Amino acid sequence: MYLGIDGGGTRLRLALCDDHFSVIHQREYGSANPSSIGKEAARSLIQTAIRETLAEASLNESDIEAVGVGIAGVSVEHSAAWLEAVMRDVLTRPFIALSSDVEIALVGAHGQRRGVLVLSGTGSAVYAVNSAGQATMVGGWGYLLGDEGSGYWIGLQALRLFTRAADGHPLSPQEAQSRLPQRTAEQLQFNHPKELIGWLYGQPMTATARVAGLAPLVLSEAEAGDMCARAMLEDGAKQLAEMAQTAAALLREPDLPIAFAGGMLAGSNVLSRSLCERLKLQEFPVSKYPPVVGAPYWQNNDWQNGLLRTTKS
Amino acid sequence: MYLGIDGGGTRLRLALCDDHFSVIHQREYGSANPSSIGKEAARSLIQTAIRETLAEASLNESDIEAVGVGIAGVSVEHSAAWLEAVMRDVLTRPFIALSSDVEIALVGAHGQRRGVLVLSGTGSAVYAVNSAGQATMVGGWGYLLGDEGSGYWIGLQALRLFTRAADGHPLSPQEAQSRLPQRTAEQLQFNHPKELIGWLYGQPMTATARVAGLAPLVLSEAEAGDMCARAMLEDGAKQLAEMAQTAAALLREPDLPIAFAGGMLAGSNVLSRSLCERLKLQEFPVSKYPPVVGAPYWQNNDWQNGLLRTTKS
Repeated sequence: MYLGIDGGGTRLRLALCDDHFSVIHQREYGSANPSSIGKEAARSLIQTAIRETLAEASLNESDIEAVGVGIAGVSVEHSAAWLEAVMRDVLTRPFIALSSDVEIALVGAHGQRRGVLVLSGTGSAVYAVNSAGQATMVGGWGYLLGDEGSGYWIGLQALRLFTRAADGHPLSPQEAQSRLPQRTAEQLQFNHPKELIGWLYGQPMTATARVAGLAPLVLSEAEAGDMCARAMLEDGAKQLAEMAQTAAALLREPDLPIAFAGGMLAGSNVLSRSLCERLKLQEFPVSKYPPVVGAPYWQNNDWQNGLLRTTKS
Repeated sequence: MYLGIDGGGTRLRLALCDDHFSVIHQREYGSANPSSIGKEAARSLIQTAIRETLAEASLNESDIEAVGVGIAGVSVEHSAAWLEAVMRDVLTRPFIALSSDVEIALVGAHGQRRGVLVLSGTGSAVYAVNSAGQATMVGGWGYLLGDEGSGYWIGLQALRLFTRAADGHPLSPQEAQSRLPQRTAEQLQFNHPKELIGWLYGQPMTATARVAGLAPLVLSEAEAGDMCARAMLEDGAKQLAEMAQTAAALLREPDLPIAFAGGMLAGSNVLSRSLCERLKLQEFPVSKYPPVVGAPYWQNNDWQNGLLRTTKS
């Protein structure tokens, strides 16, 4: 039996899998990111989550052969050692493999540590690994520096059209015909455009999620024929495709298989279809496993790259 | 004798002026913005600043005929009433006129409440008032939504080139020849590009100021002949010029005089010269008074618009 832990930026997911990587039991919690909720709260949440997941499945620590963990923010140096210590408190015996959230997503999606992962959720990035195990990341610099094609970026395009319309800027015919500014004001329940400032900057910690919350509106307006919404999504897909092509070119392996991850690419929509077209995919890529199942996948492979550390008790 | 108070986003300035608006005494403090430092700290700083400024000039409250105050963030409803109460504690008798930071900057720059003010400091905006006293603001939506042509926006362009270079994105010949990515890494003392993430997101409260701190590098590289830095500044100037033209068009008064404000337009540089050219200005616009002197200007005019409130004891 394996335990997978997916510590993304906004959610903590745990899954117990059998030896064939079928999920036996699964749980989801809020963010366990120590940068947002503090180290003590993160420690407590992770340990509780592990105990609860095992208890609900009527399992003991000794039933778990290996644990795989993927965590966001691997550039933060302390993360791996700290997380290992947190886990060792409640899981003294199993083999533990620590990796990043993009690594487990790629491994899960492809069922192997080779391929391209185009990720668009609240943020965006392309992560890729070639046959020699060399990895590269394109994008992933966060919301201030781009996150092109992400839910945040798409929501921001809607807000920028909203502010340009409110300012009385000259608009293109396409922009002038768009219902997006009006629909944005309705969704956010603004009586006056300037209310946007308080809405956006008033609670900075949740601003990216709230902006990304406008992306479904852009998707539905595009489906309904709004050419301006469609142009925003085409632009986002173009930039994601360029990131994927850059990653494959850097790894000198143009035929790497491509997978999608993140809420914006989870199903067929204007963004994901445009991306498929630009990447010349014959069909919509379906992931083999979710990231949380990709996490324990490490234990039966001898991939060395991509691991932050492995420990045996 | 008049007292002017300029409560911008990052600094509190006070100036005592005689009846001809010559500055007799001047003081500068850090931010008095209650949203950043808290209401109690802001109250204490503003009151101390008023007391110190008067004491240093050996003046009493009774020597002050009128006080003008311009404050940032007028969209925050409580600001005016709160600020008035704070000031009334230490200035019981003088006439007090409260306005916004852009109003006092426009009035100071033009020496009248008519004209266009193109503002580029950490952020950017265009504020304009026509002969009928009608006002309009274009831009000023803050760093997440644009602030085109501002110090923050210019610094961000440099960082985006830095990340694209670090990612191995295909660069244009102009971009590939630019020294900006290398000079950015040197200025920020990065050993690895990924250190940018901690630098940018680690202390969110000061991120905009730190990004804007890269703008002088872009200006100096542009002066030194870096075509990529020059293109960024040309783009910023183009967007500021469009904002100014939009404002004048909205007020149906195309011949409104134009003034500049903010650190990025304080002197002759690639950005400000390009802006002059685009706005067809015969010479570099020199402001009549700084904003802190524009503040008390209200007391001897019967402008009603643009004032948040006036009070007599």
